Amino acid sequence: MSSDKEFTLYSYWRSGTSWRVRAALHHKNIDFDYVAVNLVKGEQRSAEYLEKNPSGLVPTLVHRGVLLTQSPAILEYLEEIHPENPLLPKDPVSRAKVRALVGIIACDTHPVQNLSIIKEVARLRGKEGVDTEFAKWVNVRGLTAYEKAVGQTMGKYSFGDEFTIADICLAAQFYNANRFEVDLTPFPNIVKLMKEINEVPCIKKSHPSAQPDATA
Amino acid sequence: MSSDKEFTLYSYWRSGTSWRVRAALHHKNIDFDYVAVNLVKGEQRSAEYLEKNPSGLVPTLVHRGVLLTQSPAILEYLEEIHPENPLLPKDPVSRAKVRALVGIIACDTHPVQNLSIIKEVARLRGKEGVDTEFAKWVNVRGLTAYEKAVGQTMGKYSFGDEFTIADICLAAQFYNANRFEVDLTPFPNIVKLMKEINEVPCIKKSHPSAQPDATA
Repeated sequence: MSSDKEFTLYSYWRSGTSWRVRAALHHKNIDFDYVAVNLVKGEQRSAEYLEKNPSGLVPTLVHRGVLLTQSPAILEYLEEIHPENPLLPKDPVSRAKVRALVGIIACDTHPVQNLSIIKEVARLRGKEGVDTEFAKWVNVRGLTAYEKAVGQTMGKYSFGDEFTIADICLAAQFYNANRFEVDLTPFPNIVKLMKEINEVPCIKKSHPSAQPDATA
Repeated sequence: MSSDKEFTLYSYWRSGTSWRVRAALHHKNIDFDYVAVNLVKGEQRSAEYLEKNPSGLVPTLVHRGVLLTQSPAILEYLEEIHPENPLLPKDPVSRAKVRALVGIIACDTHPVQNLSIIKEVARLRGKEGVDTEFAKWVNVRGLTAYEKAVGQTMGKYSFGDEFTIADICLAAQFYNANRFEVDLTPFPNIVKLMKEINEVPCIKKSHPSAQPDATA
């Protein structure tokens, strides 16, 4: 790279996990080079990219030559090396509550409706393309769990009035749920939270539509 | 509870996520009460349990009345409040590498082959019970990613010679892969690691077969 920036992010505009890392970088005012990996063209399976990320997944964050993968691990890393503009509370119980909300999305929901999974479910059902029925079911299941859990913790944001990684994860999942045309009527807590979250500058800057590789 | 123990774990013997928390508690020599939640009988959907865990998932760890859910969040909590016998390295890059390994299993693999998911895939395919073909595919995919990634970090354990939460997650996933009769030939790194991991006392104590609710 000709740039002298410390961070390079390999990202795809529509990838929810890439969005999480973009949001955290913007929230912490960390400057980074953006390298688009076109998942539709299969660039994540190129030999060059697989050297950076053996799973063939986005995002990969490179920091001073160190390759970092898996978005929850990257978010924790950014929090540890760059604690300014925190994305986690300070006390262990509060942190555990935020991370539990994160887990509902980052473990139990997003990976289950990931592109490669909904392609495989379609294939097993003898269908072409992706299984949107299954993807929708996964999104409804995930939002249902989040809606209940966040009812016990929410304020202006998912955990009281602190903007956290839980809100970042929710924003990306909510975008997916809308893509899969999930009826949002049963999720008033989430709809209310998203009105606030959508106004946070780092969410606007990291939104898929604001990325250099975004297409219509 | 009549016990005066600080910790109570709601667990199911065969649940991989419960196993993770049991292993961490044993590794840190934390005494706890064990309450079995029989997933086969549907006890996770009882009104009493849903009050503790709105997602209806095991495990739930109760610490001094505080309800903690989502196993990765619980593992981070135990590490923060009880740093003795660490399960994460100290420096941020090493922690990120371990958490990335954890993510391959705790995000990209285990939740995708969870009981409720493989039941739904079976239902969508017009089959009874669980979809073992899909579950096996998910396990192979996950072990393939872990095998490649761990090749860059392993020593005696997944991350050098330090026993970490990555090893705990691997142990539980490896057990699942065996249940789904995955051919282990393509995974020599994992097979080698598991010979060591299976000898770690906390893994033995937390093994499904050693739990009070284990059935044949």
